Amino acid sequence: MIRIGILGYGNLGRGVECAIKHNADEELVAVFTRRDPSTVKILTEGAAVVNVADIESWKDKIDVLIICGGSATDLPEMTPKYAKMFNVIDSFDTHANIPQHFANVDAAAKEGGKIAMISLGWDPGMFSVSRLYANSILTEGQTYTFWGKGVSQGHSDAIRRVPGVKDGKQYTIPVPEALEAVRSGSNPELTTREKHTRECFVVLEEGADPAKVEEAIKTMPNYFADYDTTVHFISEEELKANHSGIPHGGFVIRSGKTGWNDENTHVIEYSLKLDSNPEFTSSVLVAFARAAVRMAKEGQVGCKTIFDVPPAYLSSLSGEEIRAHLL
Amino acid sequence: MIRIGILGYGNLGRGVECAIKHNADEELVAVFTRRDPSTVKILTEGAAVVNVADIESWKDKIDVLIICGGSATDLPEMTPKYAKMFNVIDSFDTHANIPQHFANVDAAAKEGGKIAMISLGWDPGMFSVSRLYANSILTEGQTYTFWGKGVSQGHSDAIRRVPGVKDGKQYTIPVPEALEAVRSGSNPELTTREKHTRECFVVLEEGADPAKVEEAIKTMPNYFADYDTTVHFISEEELKANHSGIPHGGFVIRSGKTGWNDENTHVIEYSLKLDSNPEFTSSVLVAFARAAVRMAKEGQVGCKTIFDVPPAYLSSLSGEEIRAHLL
Repeated sequence: MIRIGILGYGNLGRGVECAIKHNADEELVAVFTRRDPSTVKILTEGAAVVNVADIESWKDKIDVLIICGGSATDLPEMTPKYAKMFNVIDSFDTHANIPQHFANVDAAAKEGGKIAMISLGWDPGMFSVSRLYANSILTEGQTYTFWGKGVSQGHSDAIRRVPGVKDGKQYTIPVPEALEAVRSGSNPELTTREKHTRECFVVLEEGADPAKVEEAIKTMPNYFADYDTTVHFISEEELKANHSGIPHGGFVIRSGKTGWNDENTHVIEYSLKLDSNPEFTSSVLVAFARAAVRMAKEGQVGCKTIFDVPPAYLSSLSGEEIRAHLL
Repeated sequence: MIRIGILGYGNLGRGVECAIKHNADEELVAVFTRRDPSTVKILTEGAAVVNVADIESWKDKIDVLIICGGSATDLPEMTPKYAKMFNVIDSFDTHANIPQHFANVDAAAKEGGKIAMISLGWDPGMFSVSRLYANSILTEGQTYTFWGKGVSQGHSDAIRRVPGVKDGKQYTIPVPEALEAVRSGSNPELTTREKHTRECFVVLEEGADPAKVEEAIKTMPNYFADYDTTVHFISEEELKANHSGIPHGGFVIRSGKTGWNDENTHVIEYSLKLDSNPEFTSSVLVAFARAAVRMAKEGQVGCKTIFDVPPAYLSSLSGEEIRAHLL
């Protein structure tokens, strides 16, 4: 049995707990929390809830710690810290800061003699490895990533900060014509506006001016100004009834040329349609937890990404089984 | 530079030659052939054409040998034979015989202290690794593979063996309704007939009876009897003008459940749309040739499949570069 600890029990931590239930060779040993443990109710019978201050005493009781924190402030501090004591997994997703995070975590994991896997999930994660495979096979070509249809947490938060907004949800939606142009193999140049649209469902504070709120959202720099944005005003009940899920997904498409004179075109597409963004991310984390434990048993140390993991290490099946049934 | 040899110069060998041209860190050193070398014209200036009888003298001039033979009789004999002298790559695609082929090649490669990678291409190959990733992430679910639209060489050969047929091409086509049912996440049970249709373009011998030929094709066991098959009779000119390409492609789709009570559904899809089946397969082989050389340099030996190769080894870019640009 692979003994797993979860650090942080929000949407992602709960998703990891559910994913462990779907893997017969893994068990949840403990959830570590910054809250008072008596206030945290988990689903798994027999697993402990422990204050994170006591985590060090669990060093020999856990094979891998899945760190379920945010990328803005939690993970840059937590992952290096705990990589000194545990094999760790995180889902650090601030793309621009990955090289720095990698360096910090690598130094810490090597100091502790542990394996640390960072930036797992679907983007970064499965989308990244799809980009790498496709780029390595079709060396002359262009890669496109589209996100959605799905809820963007960051954009929903941005809406909720607009004066007059009581609550809101934002969906990122790929433009169908852009997807089709990319799939045709024509390698189009696409602007930000041409690739995605943004759809907002907004509950107003009493007395707020809808025109002013709509204007404030649509012109918000970075978040909305570069996109065609639609704003719908709905009631609180409707928001709760129809927009409380966290679906997401997207597409990685590469098209490229082969042949002595580049005469043939090929299109590789990888796509996800997810009912629950955090539960899918969690399922990826839990598969890579198995790989981390195997790599650690081989004596490997340091920071790894999805690019470094032989796919066979993700499966609970043996080499013979995967060659016979999946190859 | 990675020095590559090609054994066998048919569609696949020529595809490998073209793919090497698209990879700046690889060079074609020699093509080995069973034919009289003076009759084989290759495209690459400076590369040798050598009779396969003399291959052993190239042992130190080649880093990896890509064996471009057929799976029925060539590869089961060739890959173990040459894995004793070279790091080798093949595209062995008789799924049922992979375990036996793996065992033979593994023993030979270990004897020679070499790396051998078998069953590369897209199915087996990229489709296999897509199945493995998807199955490892969504452990409760169902995986479906669809092929096409594309030319099936085996089925085209079968048509051409029918009395009265002068020439012919067969396309395998996924049934759109089956694809949609799978994408919906409903995990349908699908029969062979429900998944694919077969479309044949046939040139008749003079005086042949079209009704008899059509009947012979449609009732052919294993090849056509279990499918809804359409037969079109066309002229030799039309066959040449419209059906001389070798396009192919397909879809690997897995849908599965997550959540404490399996309340959420996810769909993972990987698809290919290929103008040239052999050129895409070749592009995969050439990317894995790079990986084989790296693994050999690390001192690894024996038979490997796509499941054993860390994706990073496929790229000509460094770890820093792929983390910065593709993660």
